[in-house]
Amino acid sequence: MTRDVPLLFIPGPTEVRPEILRVLSEPVISHRGPRIEAITRRIFEDLGALYRTRQECFVACSSATGLMEAAVRNLSRKKVLSTVCGAFSERQYQTALKCGRPATRLGVPAGQPIDLAEVERELATGAYDLVTAVHSETSTGVLNPIAELGELVRRHDDVLLAVDCVSSLAGAPFETDLWGVDLAFAGTQKCLALPPGLTVFTVSARAMERSAAIEGRGHYFDFQLYRKMAAKGQCPATTNISLLRALGVQLDHILRKEGLEERWNRHAALAERVRGHLSERFSLFPDAGFMTPSESVFRTDGRISPTALVDELLKRGKRIGAGYGELKETTFRIGHLGDLTMRDIDGLLTDLDATLAEMGIS
Amino acid sequence: MTRDVPLLFIPGPTEVRPEILRVLSEPVISHRGPRIEAITRRIFEDLGALYRTRQECFVACSSATGLMEAAVRNLSRKKVLSTVCGAFSERQYQTALKCGRPATRLGVPAGQPIDLAEVERELATGAYDLVTAVHSETSTGVLNPIAELGELVRRHDDVLLAVDCVSSLAGAPFETDLWGVDLAFAGTQKCLALPPGLTVFTVSARAMERSAAIEGRGHYFDFQLYRKMAAKGQCPATTNISLLRALGVQLDHILRKEGLEERWNRHAALAERVRGHLSERFSLFPDAGFMTPSESVFRTDGRISPTALVDELLKRGKRIGAGYGELKETTFRIGHLGDLTMRDIDGLLTDLDATLAEMGIS
Repeated sequence: MTRDVPLLFIPGPTEVRPEILRVLSEPVISHRGPRIEAITRRIFEDLGALYRTRQECFVACSSATGLMEAAVRNLSRKKVLSTVCGAFSERQYQTALKCGRPATRLGVPAGQPIDLAEVERELATGAYDLVTAVHSETSTGVLNPIAELGELVRRHDDVLLAVDCVSSLAGAPFETDLWGVDLAFAGTQKCLALPPGLTVFTVSARAMERSAAIEGRGHYFDFQLYRKMAAKGQCPATTNISLLRALGVQLDHILRKEGLEERWNRHAALAERVRGHLSERFSLFPDAGFMTPSESVFRTDGRISPTALVDELLKRGKRIGAGYGELKETTFRIGHLGDLTMRDIDGLLTDLDATLAEMGIS
Repeated sequence: MTRDVPLLFIPGPTEVRPEILRVLSEPVISHRGPRIEAITRRIFEDLGALYRTRQECFVACSSATGLMEAAVRNLSRKKVLSTVCGAFSERQYQTALKCGRPATRLGVPAGQPIDLAEVERELATGAYDLVTAVHSETSTGVLNPIAELGELVRRHDDVLLAVDCVSSLAGAPFETDLWGVDLAFAGTQKCLALPPGLTVFTVSARAMERSAAIEGRGHYFDFQLYRKMAAKGQCPATTNISLLRALGVQLDHILRKEGLEERWNRHAALAERVRGHLSERFSLFPDAGFMTPSESVFRTDGRISPTALVDELLKRGKRIGAGYGELKETTFRIGHLGDLTMRDIDGLLTDLDATLAEMGIS
């Protein structure tokens, strides 16, 4: 196979299978009418299986960041409690402020999971109507305990829980109904292994009810509009038809060819391989017991420059990630998510070994 | 060529050239880094040529409807004057209300262009800080006099003009700077002849200044964020990389292969052919002198059912549009936009003649 672009081992966008790329190159079809409606209805149904929920599921033509705004505008009129453990949960907090909502930032040092005791204390004040969290925090590699968070939030009748599962959905167990998640959303370019451009999300009945009562929530991310269009087997506005069709094909692959739990297991196995292979040379960044299976974040401890490592490995046609944001110069990130196989990962590790040896680390 | 989906002659999404479909099937590249930044910088520059503006240009990962919300949230804190002449300008008005902004609906009967005298009277009240309009109203086939509207708006220092040019950009003359348009936006699936999924837009300096001063404008459509990221050759969040690359290829085609003015002329020629061919059997819906070159909307005068006509023609592998919204049962629409050629249109008209004859209209 000849290709002039590197293989992606960043924590998203990830490699896309040729079968999916072929769907994207098919002629465009009308965004209304029975053909696309049948595809869309099947997608909504499959998303229910993916999200492990009986609640309504939808597709938005936006980056997942758009749903951070949707969370705030549809679900809060009192005050937002934002759990922050890295750049993406920070973005959710900043989005609340930029939407003009009062919000509290409940932060922990990078690499740690959210502090459940702190959440409990804050909720006891009765000041909040929405808690936000990121399941898999892509900037630090932390996987947060959403089951336990959901259990805390459910003790308060009027508080909703919105969870960013961008880099965990389809790559790690995510149990919308069991955990009591009112809104969950994920872009298509992480564990779903599609190009970016759409966001899939699910809304609980009580979140839908809250949304209906909030004035000024806008149009583009209005959950009521999504519900109204979904009843007709449609998405609002003119959505990305090509990517929507690819999503349909990929959901079928995930649920009926690979199997969802097998997909979770594969991500866990890839993570184990990468971590085992590098453990003598680098320590992992996140707290033990709270690591996402979709990527591994390693400390460099000042021995190499992460960006130099990325650049050197690129010469072998493979792209990993430097650290994100504040961690840019002190960590590097290997994405092992989506449709990547053990063979892909072994190939990466071979090239990584050679590159690290050249850089004096063996 | 064998294909199992009809050729599209609806007013968008339109047919996409095989060259563009091939770009969509290329491997995904990282959304950050020099390669995509070079492509993105070139796109921003080419959009300046497309919009005929020296102002900043951007790409949003959303449907054009998202920019209706962006217009209101970034540009108005007083009151919106919404000119309404069909379903899409109505949507812009409703979006203002759904964002919690006071707004006036300045409507005209379907088929007519906006009423400039009425606009002038309303603006004289001094109540407004934003005027919204649709250039090419896809539901009725009307092309509005934006040059004249801009001239009226410019007489008021503190009033901005936001224009939806979704089905006119690259298909009809659009002069952002000359006409004094502060915000213009268009989806990729109309005259740009790409799949849907991205929206291109341009923001004037005074609109950018207004945006910076408005609290609660949010994050996802925040013009300040677009400016900040554009300075680095980037789009905010993780955008649709595949479609962005296709946009780059298509802008090069439009500006340097076909030529922008030649593209406008081709749309005008296709419109003339369609209208000339059907003029003895059907009358055109929009007011004379105010017809968009991207589609033709015909009255059925109760002689045929538009949806029956669409369905019958589908049997010959070609899809035209029934009327939109309230005009569903009384008009039909033929899209002649994007990369469609005179040969495509002649093929359509042959099949349309045969279909109409079968339905008793010859």
